[in-house]
Amino acid sequence: MADKITPRSVDYSQWFIDIVLNAKLADYSPVKGAMVIRPRGYAIWERIQAEFDRQFKATGHQNAYFPMLIPMSFLQKEKDHVEGFKPELAIVTHGGGEELEEPYCVRPTSETIIWYMYKNWIQSYRDLPLLYNQWCSVMRWEKRTRLFLRTSEFLWQEGHTAHETEKEAVEETMRMLGVYKDVAERYLCLPVIAGRKSEAEKFAGAVATYCIEAMMQDRKALQAGTSHFLGQNFGKAFDVQFQSREGRLEYAWATSWGVSTRLIGAIIMTHSDDKGLVLPPTLAPEQAVIVPILKKDSAPAVLAYCEKLLAELKASGIRAILDADDTQSPGWKFAEHEMNGVCLRIEVGPRDMAEGKAMVVRRDTGEKVAYEVAGLPATALGLLDAMQKNLYDKALAFRKENTKRVSDRAELLAFYGKDQGDEAGTATATGGFAEGLWCGDRECEAALKAETKVTIRCLPLEGQDHVEGKCCLCGKPAKHLAVFARNY
Amino acid sequence: MADKITPRSVDYSQWFIDIVLNAKLADYSPVKGAMVIRPRGYAIWERIQAEFDRQFKATGHQNAYFPMLIPMSFLQKEKDHVEGFKPELAIVTHGGGEELEEPYCVRPTSETIIWYMYKNWIQSYRDLPLLYNQWCSVMRWEKRTRLFLRTSEFLWQEGHTAHETEKEAVEETMRMLGVYKDVAERYLCLPVIAGRKSEAEKFAGAVATYCIEAMMQDRKALQAGTSHFLGQNFGKAFDVQFQSREGRLEYAWATSWGVSTRLIGAIIMTHSDDKGLVLPPTLAPEQAVIVPILKKDSAPAVLAYCEKLLAELKASGIRAILDADDTQSPGWKFAEHEMNGVCLRIEVGPRDMAEGKAMVVRRDTGEKVAYEVAGLPATALGLLDAMQKNLYDKALAFRKENTKRVSDRAELLAFYGKDQGDEAGTATATGGFAEGLWCGDRECEAALKAETKVTIRCLPLEGQDHVEGKCCLCGKPAKHLAVFARNY
Repeated sequence: MADKITPRSVDYSQWFIDIVLNAKLADYSPVKGAMVIRPRGYAIWERIQAEFDRQFKATGHQNAYFPMLIPMSFLQKEKDHVEGFKPELAIVTHGGGEELEEPYCVRPTSETIIWYMYKNWIQSYRDLPLLYNQWCSVMRWEKRTRLFLRTSEFLWQEGHTAHETEKEAVEETMRMLGVYKDVAERYLCLPVIAGRKSEAEKFAGAVATYCIEAMMQDRKALQAGTSHFLGQNFGKAFDVQFQSREGRLEYAWATSWGVSTRLIGAIIMTHSDDKGLVLPPTLAPEQAVIVPILKKDSAPAVLAYCEKLLAELKASGIRAILDADDTQSPGWKFAEHEMNGVCLRIEVGPRDMAEGKAMVVRRDTGEKVAYEVAGLPATALGLLDAMQKNLYDKALAFRKENTKRVSDRAELLAFYGKDQGDEAGTATATGGFAEGLWCGDRECEAALKAETKVTIRCLPLEGQDHVEGKCCLCGKPAKHLAVFARNY
Repeated sequence: MADKITPRSVDYSQWFIDIVLNAKLADYSPVKGAMVIRPRGYAIWERIQAEFDRQFKATGHQNAYFPMLIPMSFLQKEKDHVEGFKPELAIVTHGGGEELEEPYCVRPTSETIIWYMYKNWIQSYRDLPLLYNQWCSVMRWEKRTRLFLRTSEFLWQEGHTAHETEKEAVEETMRMLGVYKDVAERYLCLPVIAGRKSEAEKFAGAVATYCIEAMMQDRKALQAGTSHFLGQNFGKAFDVQFQSREGRLEYAWATSWGVSTRLIGAIIMTHSDDKGLVLPPTLAPEQAVIVPILKKDSAPAVLAYCEKLLAELKASGIRAILDADDTQSPGWKFAEHEMNGVCLRIEVGPRDMAEGKAMVVRRDTGEKVAYEVAGLPATALGLLDAMQKNLYDKALAFRKENTKRVSDRAELLAFYGKDQGDEAGTATATGGFAEGLWCGDRECEAALKAETKVTIRCLPLEGQDHVEGKCCLCGKPAKHLAVFARNY
């Protein structure tokens, strides 16, 4: 049986690690800051990937693959880009037994090598747009790492598009932000706020960075995806010019956008509880487990009854398993499958069988109802749908409860508590998302971060229409509505 | 329009490169020996992946992900393994701005890091078998590279399994060899010979390596997949012991097996022709293209007719496109779609429309038949099936025509020609697969290779039952039937 997991109220960070390790989603590796994604974790990633990939293709994108190594000189070509990424690079200096003339870095992101190639492929407006995406792993040598949330190597997708006009590139940036929001909310049950990053928080090399931000159960924010409008920065850095419709030479306009295995961390920290993993039914490798209650004489009949039920559930498209292991007690199995995030537990004992019933327990609410076995697949599908909706609604309600409009500095500081800037973050910490007006000044934002570890998560897309009043931090005239939070 | 491609009869190697570049399957990259896989190439890889992945899961395997970096000390733990791979490693010496205490290599294959993790996960026979697979990229710093066939970085899958007994591990090795042969023949239309490698050709660290070998159009062999029985070599190197059913501590038994993007090279070199790419319908990103013959007055009607046909083809599950570009002539389009390997070309002009017909041209045979448009989707599905079968049959017939049984050295040397060991390999080179008895001696094999570049590709599984006679190379008593060839 899995080890006991630390309750969230005691130590939220340890609770998270306990879930990841005990549900066998991932494990520590012997490589600094890198993790191993175990089959149950990877099966979740495969489902996340499949849904995003479907949406990318539906919006006209194609997958491609670019080298994992990038010549160091490429990074230098965009000055903000190299400044942002240089401290985090892993460097390859030797290959095939010899020292290399020019070192390579392992890609931290692929704008540079992709735009180097785009120069060969883009001559005319007829070659545009290029709407490419890549699924791969990237490496960022982080000092402090945490399973799924921040690892030196992680899996992600990176979209890189090239366009004729600024307008089209901006539209693409917003379209992919919309795809991210849709998949996060509908498929991962993560309510997110879509917004623009402040100048201080934007991607190294971007003109503007847009993001989706989710609230975890400890009320901290987690950036769940980003979409960047890169302007002509990479077009110019890699000299990607094309003949326009008017016959002029122009630099191509760019976007890039990505989501990563970090999403699995967000899903865990949004839905799970002290018993273990809770997963949206869309993602659960196992949506239902049948646990037979085996007693001496009736055991063969109960097992046969369960096997028939299993076949029916599978035939309805439910990912169901039967746990017929007779070396473990039902109670042990209940705990194990709760730990693993199986959505529905279906208990069948001799009496249930005699009555033509089965006891169904929902992982999210713990509701336990005896249903007729005739029609159970349809019932189970209905319960899975209800669970999908409930997880989203619960997370949205939690975010709303923990979001506060603030109008001045005192109110904001009170919301976050005087000395609550602890690194671990506990579920008892005060605060959450604060919404307040902001002047837009870098120094004003930096001062808040230094004092409280609270940062501007985004300038939400909604609510920027009639910004009037004073900055809640410094009292100067406000330019934006901002969402503040401590963050992962 | 695409550049003219070099005919196979002039220069087979150049023909191959011309196909890859002009059909936009891949491109050279600025990273030594690495290529960029362009969308059309990657779409083929996605289909290859999907089919293998389906078969792996159907045989009980799960996907996982292990770090791309491996501590150098891990490689040292299995002595054959490090000897085999050390010359090809890319080495990471710096991370996060600092020199690393211990360098890492970029994985050339992942046995070592996976077996390091298996030690944590395997305590008892109850934990076995572990049937894991990983889709990833690997790096082998090769001196001479060729698009798809031999690149410093390539995409692949690597299965790594751990078992209680030798028998189970051997069965797994053979099961996955069977999966490879099945997918290669049924899905990729590549007839292959399944066999065991000689000691000289086996994987560094294996007890026995099995492979599937295909014949290219220049009659050279290409190794299309390998499945290794690793014995307890990695179990011992990483101290992976488990409590057996009898209560003893035993080392786990291992297999590993892989196929890579090299398969795309094999597919090109088996099926394509001097007009461009020919793809099995299972893999073709575009299975049918409708080319309207647009003449002034009838153009709108013909276009509408084609759009209706397109919708019908798509509704039948055919990956169909309509090329309505009015800036290019039909002839230009025909050549372009032939280059790109579209399986069926459907020409529709005003007269075809008037007669309720469409002209369909098969990419593999060039057959051109006017079919009734009513029922065309069913006709097209039938043609695609016929093409799938024809590609396999043609390749198999070619291999049979170019396979010769040899009984002595003179016969073998005559088959390969006196001085035909040219590196490039041309379609006019003599030779192919020679089948002959072999003594099993390493020196005997090495002498042949040094003299002729002909090697033992495998000891085919079929035909080893009644080996009696003399080695066709040295005349000593024979132990095996062997397949000889020059190879990629």
